[in-house]
Amino acid sequence: MSSPTIETFPNPRPERDYEIAIQYPEFTSLCPKTGLPDFGEIRITYVPGARCIELKSLKYYMIEFRNKGIFYEHVTNQILDDLVAAIQPRRMTVIGDFSVRGGIKTVVTAEYRAEAQG
Amino acid sequence: MSSPTIETFPNPRPERDYEIAIQYPEFTSLCPKTGLPDFGEIRITYVPGARCIELKSLKYYMIEFRNKGIFYEHVTNQILDDLVAAIQPRRMTVIGDFSVRGGIKTVVTAEYRAEAQG
Amino acid sequence: MSSPTIETFPNPRPERDYEIAIQYPEFTSLCPKTGLPDFGEIRITYVPGARCIELKSLKYYMIEFRNKGIFYEHVTNQILDDLVAAIQPRRMTVIGDFSVRGGIKTVVTAEYRAEAQG
Amino acid sequence: MSSPTIETFPNPRPERDYEIAIQYPEFTSLCPKTGLPDFGEIRITYVPGARCIELKSLKYYMIEFRNKGIFYEHVTNQILDDLVAAIQPRRMTVIGDFSVRGGIKTVVTAEYRAEAQG
Amino acid sequence: MSSPTIETFPNPRPERDYEIAIQYPEFTSLCPKTGLPDFGEIRITYVPGARCIELKSLKYYMIEFRNKGIFYEHVTNQILDDLVAAIQPRRMTVIGDFSVRGGIKTVVTAEYRAEAQG
Amino acid sequence: MSSPTIETFPNPRPERDYEIAIQYPEFTSLCPKTGLPDFGEIRITYVPGARCIELKSLKYYMIEFRNKGIFYEHVTNQILDDLVAAIQPRRMTVIGDFSVRGGIKTVVTAEYRAEAQG
Amino acid sequence: MSSPTIETFPNPRPERDYEIAIQYPEFTSLCPKTGLPDFGEIRITYVPGARCIELKSLKYYMIEFRNKGIFYEHVTNQILDDLVAAIQPRRMTVIGDFSVRGGIKTVVTAEYRAEAQG
Amino acid sequence: MSSPTIETFPNPRPERDYEIAIQYPEFTSLCPKTGLPDFGEIRITYVPGARCIELKSLKYYMIEFRNKGIFYEHVTNQILDDLVAAIQPRRMTVIGDFSVRGGIKTVVTAEYRAEAQG
Amino acid sequence: MSSPTIETFPNPRPERDYEIAIQYPEFTSLCPKTGLPDFGEIRITYVPGARCIELKSLKYYMIEFRNKGIFYEHVTNQILDDLVAAIQPRRMTVIGDFSVRGGIKTVVTAEYRAEAQG
Amino acid sequence: MSSPTIETFPNPRPERDYEIAIQYPEFTSLCPKTGLPDFGEIRITYVPGARCIELKSLKYYMIEFRNKGIFYEHVTNQILDDLVAAIQPRRMTVIGDFSVRGGIKTVVTAEYRAEAQG
Repeated sequence: MSSPTIETFPNPRPERDYEIAIQYPEFTSLCPKTGLPDFGEIRITYVPGARCIELKSLKYYMIEFRNKGIFYEHVTNQILDDLVAAIQPRRMTVIGDFSVRGGIKTVVTAEYRAEAQG
Repeated sequence: MSSPTIETFPNPRPERDYEIAIQYPEFTSLCPKTGLPDFGEIRITYVPGARCIELKSLKYYMIEFRNKGIFYEHVTNQILDDLVAAIQPRRMTVIGDFSVRGGIKTVVTAEYRAEAQG
Repeated sequence: MSSPTIETFPNPRPERDYEIAIQYPEFTSLCPKTGLPDFGEIRITYVPGARCIELKSLKYYMIEFRNKGIFYEHVTNQILDDLVAAIQPRRMTVIGDFSVRGGIKTVVTAEYRAEAQG
Repeated sequence: MSSPTIETFPNPRPERDYEIAIQYPEFTSLCPKTGLPDFGEIRITYVPGARCIELKSLKYYMIEFRNKGIFYEHVTNQILDDLVAAIQPRRMTVIGDFSVRGGIKTVVTAEYRAEAQG
Repeated sequence: MSSPTIETFPNPRPERDYEIAIQYPEFTSLCPKTGLPDFGEIRITYVPGARCIELKSLKYYMIEFRNKGIFYEHVTNQILDDLVAAIQPRRMTVIGDFSVRGGIKTVVTAEYRAEAQG
Repeated sequence: MSSPTIETFPNPRPERDYEIAIQYPEFTSLCPKTGLPDFGEIRITYVPGARCIELKSLKYYMIEFRNKGIFYEHVTNQILDDLVAAIQPRRMTVIGDFSVRGGIKTVVTAEYRAEAQG
Repeated sequence: MSSPTIETFPNPRPERDYEIAIQYPEFTSLCPKTGLPDFGEIRITYVPGARCIELKSLKYYMIEFRNKGIFYEHVTNQILDDLVAAIQPRRMTVIGDFSVRGGIKTVVTAEYRAEAQG
Repeated sequence: MSSPTIETFPNPRPERDYEIAIQYPEFTSLCPKTGLPDFGEIRITYVPGARCIELKSLKYYMIEFRNKGIFYEHVTNQILDDLVAAIQPRRMTVIGDFSVRGGIKTVVTAEYRAEAQG
Repeated sequence: MSSPTIETFPNPRPERDYEIAIQYPEFTSLCPKTGLPDFGEIRITYVPGARCIELKSLKYYMIEFRNKGIFYEHVTNQILDDLVAAIQPRRMTVIGDFSVRGGIKTVVTAEYRAEAQG
Repeated sequence: MSSPTIETFPNPRPERDYEIAIQYPEFTSLCPKTGLPDFGEIRITYVPGARCIELKSLKYYMIEFRNKGIFYEHVTNQILDDLVAAIQPRRMTVIGDFSVRGGIKTVVTAEYRAEAQG
């Protein structure tokens, strides 16, 4: 996932710890085993540091997964890593809430905390 | 946003820490990039100090944003700053819960605590 | 509000700290400014000491507000004060959850804790 | 309430603290003042010690209240006492969530913790 | 339940503590007393160690209970034991949320924490 | 069910066909086979003729079933017959919406139309 | 109810049959027997003729019932009669959906059709 | 499905056309292709003729499908045929509302009307 | 409202009567009396003739009302007239479902049918 | 859309008119203008003639749209045409219920009836 660029903009209140929560309900990728489409909602919550995530570029970043084969556990951690790299937040949680497959529903939750934070 | 005045009235029980929660579901402003309207609900929760927020003036304060271009992160912090300046509460949280735009939903949460409080 | 009497009965298990939660969804009073009716739900949660609140008398106490002009912040604190005076509970919370007025919804939450409790 | 027997069975995992939550939505008794029927849901949550509650006998225990006159505060505490006596759990909560009467809804919550537990 | 094998795969981010939540809403087994079918939802939440649960094999493991007689308290603890043995997670919770039987609903919750974890 | 009297009062608008719908969510009787309690909601909809059903007496009529053994199909038709006899409505529907028993839920619907009506 | 005046305004599209539906969820009156408050929602649906109902005057008309004793069947028919007299609609339905009293909920529905209409 | 017997009892009001609606939410069978379990809710609505369906025997009839392989379209029609044969109702509808399989949900609806009825 | 242009595109299946339903939940205009903002959802359902409504131009058409003073009854009929003029549908319904004002909610429904249709 | 084949199987009860309803909640295609993904639920209801739709092949048929650019009105009619061609049903309805785009939600409904049917 090297190419899709997440654009950022300066945090308008860097002196205050406040939270931004984003829901992207139209996530879709492919199952690496079967090639069949997977669907889910990605929820991102973060306290910005110097920069915030620009939403339009986030949308294009998400659309890049549309025709890639990737597992639920992997994609949730990957999105967290990519967003942390892009904006170095004070803390961030990424939740991948995926549709039922084979009668089983899966939700993966991964968190990051900046070291200087705690 | 210098002009719109938030009126206040004396806290009827200043000796007790109690909480007032206000929901304003009809917030609307303009997107600074596209000029298109944004919609959302503003939720304010506070413990009053000497004074409380007068609701009718709060409504007129909110309506002032109707034809202004302002980003979600900015407006939520701005409302918190303006209300803290107006009533100096013991603590206050402002949540801006905005409608889906481009398939993405955003909620911004900002808090204030009076220093003598903690 | 001196006249309406809240009747009480002995706590059947005074040796145990347990909680009683009461919802009164049909609260109505008048707006002191406009004279127009206000509506809301009053929720009371308490740990009884020696005595409990008798519900029928509570209903008549609530009905006394029907044609009185009183603000949301005031009435919630008033009910807490009156009930604390009537039964001296170990702790009590009163929540006034009022209907939308002028497009704005308000919820007021006030708490009491007996000093010997903490 | 001396007669109705709550049967028990040996806890299949006494070495592990785990929780059993039971809902009985069809509780009914009589109001001691008016003789009119009361309705409610009894919710029991406990961590078993040596023994668990057998559900069929619990149902018959509950049905015993059908034609007895008893107040909400009393019956919730009584059920807790009877069940604690029957199985000596590590901890137990009993919630009596009763239907609206005279426009007022009541929920009573009582807890027990074995002394050696804490 | 010795035979049904739970397959596993390597945790793609073993260096990060993250949570995987799985819902299996179509659990069914038999009541050991009456032979009648029981139904429920099994919810599993865990922080993986070296390995994760492969979902297709989990489904076949669950289907193995279809024609076995087993009590609610037993089956919930059994699933926890089997899954802990299969993947040695950092922590795991299993909830068995069973349908109403004889007018009574039961939910059993059991937890495991690796010793080195706390 | 000869004894319980349904009281009536004169229809305030006999010249207009209008509908009155009544819900009684706290119906309970006994199963004639097992003696165990049954629960349900009785819904009555009618166009009054010369007289309307007095609600307090309807409540006492319903409470009479509390300790009687009667099947779902029978009780729904019985209530329709008793109410038709009491007020001779232009038309009436009685719905008995009963709780799940043995994993099966039952709703019985019976209608009456006065002959001169159609 | 002779005094409260329902104001009207000219129908902006008298040549088209269209429907206006109004909900007033804060209706309250008194029980003529007990003097206790009753609560409900009044729903009005009509096809206007030459004139429409002015909403502010409708609100004041509704508030007039606040301290009057009147039965459910009577008040629903009364509102229909008063509104039909005020605007002579092509057709109108008034529904009085009242809160539970004594464990029984009542909904009254009355309709009017102009003779030339059908 | 020749063996499972649906028991019946005499219709208590054969002179009146009334409706009985039954929900069985715990239907399960096997997919004839894969052998994997299917789940669904069977809803039956009928106007009885001379006889009604006895519910306990209906439950045992439904449980017979637990380990049989049968398609959705077939089983819904089969249940309708078996029940019509057992009680010769005036009319009957059977709805098979099955769980999602492969991301697709299916509901099958079949009706019967006695010839002399229409 | 002469200026805002509703763009259209050719109906891809003019030989078939099919229905297109559109929801625009973010309608806002001003009250002509008070100048305060009104909010609502506009729902449009139509059977296209030769042409369909282009959605982006519909959005800009709706945004034109943002700072206009117009009553609920008027705006719903106006939108119907403008859309009928733009695409000459076989039939069309416009529903204006407006937010509560002064404790009263209003929904206006207007329909059009092409004469050759019926 | 010539290539994707919809497989069929013989109707198990061709002598009876019965209804099959299918929901496919994970439909996705591309907007022909912007290339951005669209999402929606396709609902199909039909009375089979000689043959029924095989669900697995329907799923693969739906997945074929994943990377095609097609408008809402077009795709709904296209699916109806393809399915009618594949199974010649007695009647069929296809509903395309699409996600909000640009703040506007669209639902398209198209029907087919075999000529000999009505």
